Amino acid sequence: MITSFHPPKRTLMGPGPSDVSPRVLEAMSRPTIGHLDPAFVTMMDEVKVLLKQAFKTENALTMPVSAPGSAGMEACFVNLVEPGDKVIVCQNGVFGGRMKENVERFGGEAVMVQDAWGAPVSVEKVKAAFAEHPDAKILAFVHAETSTGVRSDAQALCKVAQDHGALTIVDTVTSLGGSELRVDEWGIDAVYSGTQKCLSCPPGISPVSFSEKALAKVQARETRAPSWFLDKKLVMGYWGGEGKRAYHHTAPVNSLYALHESLVILQEEGVEKAWERHALHHQALKAGLEAMGINFLVDEAYRLPQLNTVLIPEGVDDAQVRSALLNNFNLEIGAGLGDLAGKVWRIGLMGAACNRTNVVLCVSALESTLARMGADIPVGKALQAVEAVYAS
Amino acid sequence: MITSFHPPKRTLMGPGPSDVSPRVLEAMSRPTIGHLDPAFVTMMDEVKVLLKQAFKTENALTMPVSAPGSAGMEACFVNLVEPGDKVIVCQNGVFGGRMKENVERFGGEAVMVQDAWGAPVSVEKVKAAFAEHPDAKILAFVHAETSTGVRSDAQALCKVAQDHGALTIVDTVTSLGGSELRVDEWGIDAVYSGTQKCLSCPPGISPVSFSEKALAKVQARETRAPSWFLDKKLVMGYWGGEGKRAYHHTAPVNSLYALHESLVILQEEGVEKAWERHALHHQALKAGLEAMGINFLVDEAYRLPQLNTVLIPEGVDDAQVRSALLNNFNLEIGAGLGDLAGKVWRIGLMGAACNRTNVVLCVSALESTLARMGADIPVGKALQAVEAVYAS
Repeated sequence: MITSFHPPKRTLMGPGPSDVSPRVLEAMSRPTIGHLDPAFVTMMDEVKVLLKQAFKTENALTMPVSAPGSAGMEACFVNLVEPGDKVIVCQNGVFGGRMKENVERFGGEAVMVQDAWGAPVSVEKVKAAFAEHPDAKILAFVHAETSTGVRSDAQALCKVAQDHGALTIVDTVTSLGGSELRVDEWGIDAVYSGTQKCLSCPPGISPVSFSEKALAKVQARETRAPSWFLDKKLVMGYWGGEGKRAYHHTAPVNSLYALHESLVILQEEGVEKAWERHALHHQALKAGLEAMGINFLVDEAYRLPQLNTVLIPEGVDDAQVRSALLNNFNLEIGAGLGDLAGKVWRIGLMGAACNRTNVVLCVSALESTLARMGADIPVGKALQAVEAVYAS
Repeated sequence: MITSFHPPKRTLMGPGPSDVSPRVLEAMSRPTIGHLDPAFVTMMDEVKVLLKQAFKTENALTMPVSAPGSAGMEACFVNLVEPGDKVIVCQNGVFGGRMKENVERFGGEAVMVQDAWGAPVSVEKVKAAFAEHPDAKILAFVHAETSTGVRSDAQALCKVAQDHGALTIVDTVTSLGGSELRVDEWGIDAVYSGTQKCLSCPPGISPVSFSEKALAKVQARETRAPSWFLDKKLVMGYWGGEGKRAYHHTAPVNSLYALHESLVILQEEGVEKAWERHALHHQALKAGLEAMGINFLVDEAYRLPQLNTVLIPEGVDDAQVRSALLNNFNLEIGAGLGDLAGKVWRIGLMGAACNRTNVVLCVSALESTLARMGADIPVGKALQAVEAVYAS
């Protein structure tokens, strides 16, 4: 017989999911109601309003896709890429590769712009790609690369696309709520995110937003999108209008309670204040890590405060350290992906997990674990460095 | 400012979501852990074991899709239908129509077998369709039509497909956990369901299972499936093996806690016992409704105990009654869909909502509401009829 599952209480400082606020967990356990219940429809409208604030957009089609971030990505590509469309796809980590997969599976042609893992997307290379492919209809890139901790200049990249009359699809899974993101001001046409990063919700929902221009391309499609579940023409009847909803699928009621609560928390703090908080704790974490000789993969100018990718010190066993942190401290930090596996750690400071207690725990747990394993690092300076940042 | 959302406490006797057990709601609010956490991986393995028991299958690829039932449907069609494949699709309600949409969007050719809304799928018509289209590769039908409350003979239909060397895709969204379903014994090749019906979980997850024959077709595909999120070749690396997982997407951690708990509850009761419970309370509800002159849409032989579709009495206003039930009794029953809108109510007795308290509430609330509105129905006999069933 299998019995009830009681998870350990972890501190989640990996690439996501991040720590979920007790308020959000409690909201998730409220009684389930019907997805066509008038009370639920009112809540859906509020989620849309709150998501617009978080994305900084007025887009009418701003809504949560009823599935994880990968489905939000797919919702953007399956609706906007038509067979034969040329799409410039920027890859500087894992998730650009997924964008390529998406383009090709939906019959598009992906023109790849490659940058090193750990570097931002090169605006110059994108300009060159458009010069070579003036018929490209879409530019797709990752704003905040979860595999490397790199921020690319979304505003500049969108400008290039606009200059060439192309739409933009932008992955903001890790940036939403954690660092500057201005969908309308930057001119992003289709954006997707996830709930389990800086919104500090359990994973499972993907907020998306489509501009008027993006919607016009969806409406003008000559072929039906090769997805019924993610077809925006259908989903709009469910989420799009005011009041009466056309039944499309059954919304994940309790997961949306959680998203609603996490967005209420973000509204209470203020989106800009949340960005500032992430920046502050990043500085403290950075000071502590550097005091024990641990360095960042990414140039300072392009670092994401919410995802700190650091080089594993010489001679230290990656898996052994992460296991020790998990078993001794209930602390999760992230491993490297792809070529970076075994070479880096990804330390998240996302949403509710981005606080002083977690910074202190992470720095001191890492210091004592590395010292215990005999790593050649300076000891006894890290906490002082952290405190100095908070005192300043 | 938007504030926290506190849903009303409803009794959910519509077509789903159904009432969620407090045990499941509590499980959902347990602390989120990483989706690659060893503790979570153990839980994933347990969910697979429990789902196999619920589906009565030994299929290795039995897993929850990280999205609602519509995505589970799409996971079956997008992986199994290749461009040019001929698929016999049976339609006797809303959901057969969705199957057609799925087939066509993925490049297949749908051969439709139509039956009246309220009738089961005709085995004879399916035989005739195979005689006319011996090259059909797949037979797709709905086992338990949520729009009408009809059960079709899945075993007989699968036998026809097997006789013609075709695979079967079967929608068991409303049947899983509520009435007899034997995936292996009946020879179903691809099956999908939902969590929000007779498993009494919040909506958002879709259990699926693929037979070896279905998997062989997926593996032998000449084209990539037009979905990255739902590609079983990729998902198998995440859910398929034992132990180490290849990262595909971030699983909806807390929603899976809920599914795990609901499956533990089903295991405690026993799957067959759950079917018997649904049959018993259906008899009691039926007795109560018939005592006030309310009749069923569906012939007795094909009725689903978990979804009772009844004809709205002459001269009674559908919306007015449902609003009164919701506002006075916090009781939700379902409206008709499509051609049946305004003509029927769909009264669910699903999972945790399938109990004596709910039957009594529904019958007495409906009786007093109809009487108050001046409907011409016999009064004072319904509760007695319900009690008689439980006494027998």
